[in-house]
Amino acid sequence: MNTPAVIAFDVFGTVVDWHGSIRREAEAMMPGIDGAAFANAWRAGYKPAMAEVRQGQLGWTRIDDLHRKILDRILPQFGQDLPEEQRQHLNLAWHRLDPWPDAVDGLTRLKSRFTIVTLSNGNLSLLANMAKYAQLPWDLILSAEVFRHYKPDPEAYLGVAEVFDVPPDKVMLVATHEDDLEAAQHCGLQTAYVHRPAEYGAQAKVVSDLARFDRDAADFIDLDAQLRASPD
Amino acid sequence: MNTPAVIAFDVFGTVVDWHGSIRREAEAMMPGIDGAAFANAWRAGYKPAMAEVRQGQLGWTRIDDLHRKILDRILPQFGQDLPEEQRQHLNLAWHRLDPWPDAVDGLTRLKSRFTIVTLSNGNLSLLANMAKYAQLPWDLILSAEVFRHYKPDPEAYLGVAEVFDVPPDKVMLVATHEDDLEAAQHCGLQTAYVHRPAEYGAQAKVVSDLARFDRDAADFIDLDAQLRASPD
Repeated sequence: MNTPAVIAFDVFGTVVDWHGSIRREAEAMMPGIDGAAFANAWRAGYKPAMAEVRQGQLGWTRIDDLHRKILDRILPQFGQDLPEEQRQHLNLAWHRLDPWPDAVDGLTRLKSRFTIVTLSNGNLSLLANMAKYAQLPWDLILSAEVFRHYKPDPEAYLGVAEVFDVPPDKVMLVATHEDDLEAAQHCGLQTAYVHRPAEYGAQAKVVSDLARFDRDAADFIDLDAQLRASPD
Repeated sequence: MNTPAVIAFDVFGTVVDWHGSIRREAEAMMPGIDGAAFANAWRAGYKPAMAEVRQGQLGWTRIDDLHRKILDRILPQFGQDLPEEQRQHLNLAWHRLDPWPDAVDGLTRLKSRFTIVTLSNGNLSLLANMAKYAQLPWDLILSAEVFRHYKPDPEAYLGVAEVFDVPPDKVMLVATHEDDLEAAQHCGLQTAYVHRPAEYGAQAKVVSDLARFDRDAADFIDLDAQLRASPD
């Protein structure tokens, strides 16, 4: 392994706590709702919706619009009927997700020695608003929107290397999702798994064999320490 | 006029002093060269090179590669023959441009009330490296590379509005180039001219009728003050 030139971060779940943030906003807007179940239901609609785009059943569609379609579908399932203005506000809760406690400090440490970028399926304005809200110190915000391909399409992972004009193995993907890291590994990227056991709230998160990834880190501060201790 | 939601900045000349920075690096690498003339010659090759891409004679090509083509052409004109490694290093001088003295302070003030983004023909890695070097506090780096269209193609200006899902008149372009602002105005954007009289060094900069733009500012601190004094 060689020292990466660029470290790319998955965002939802890896950098920010979507579950806790969505739950909080949902419960504030809809008193009495099961906010944890609502957050997980909203998130569960995300992969199938992206798959429609990836498989060509749906033309290029931003996550903001996919989130809205899913929201409109699940609201009745939770016995809710919000007016348009409130739906628009709630849909943008994905632009206001809180970072995990180590995230800003860890990213700031990593930024001092590496170029740190996002590689998220979130759209550019979502990621920019989130960075402003959560003070995430990205060197560059990259998104599926730039490559017009959602992860795990190879174009997204290889796109980061192309933007920086480096071979794929000079890019490291950091994520708390094994399927994302596997797809990156297939494209020749370095990989680091980060543990976010509370990603789905109380719902347990299944973790399998992490030894196949280059790094296995408790959080971003641990990842920074590992890269300082054994850079290669 | 209404308050903009997003302020987009041209970068070369508007935010950073390409002339002084390129001159300094050229003179350090090639003692005795006329660094000011060299910087202006390099920059003069930029618009014709982009025009080849805009008119389809050349496929999509990043500014890094256009800069390199121009560099290889002008070096002999200045009696220079640099080895490959030095050419690569000098070409990346465009990633290390110094900001104008007011730029970081002015951008930081504007960032507290607006979303501030780049809209530059520079490629993404160039703009990311420059932001890291010069500590430019962008909320989002947008580039012709994202839209696959160089300014003044309308797709570049309208692309900013599309990314943020706002009408074009909620975006303001800030530039020290009248042709850039004119093209933005044609697309319905708000416009602000910023004076950078030393953009070409000692070579005078011609300024015509600025009253046709929405704002005429001495620098970014003045622009911020104007937007606070009369936001609409």
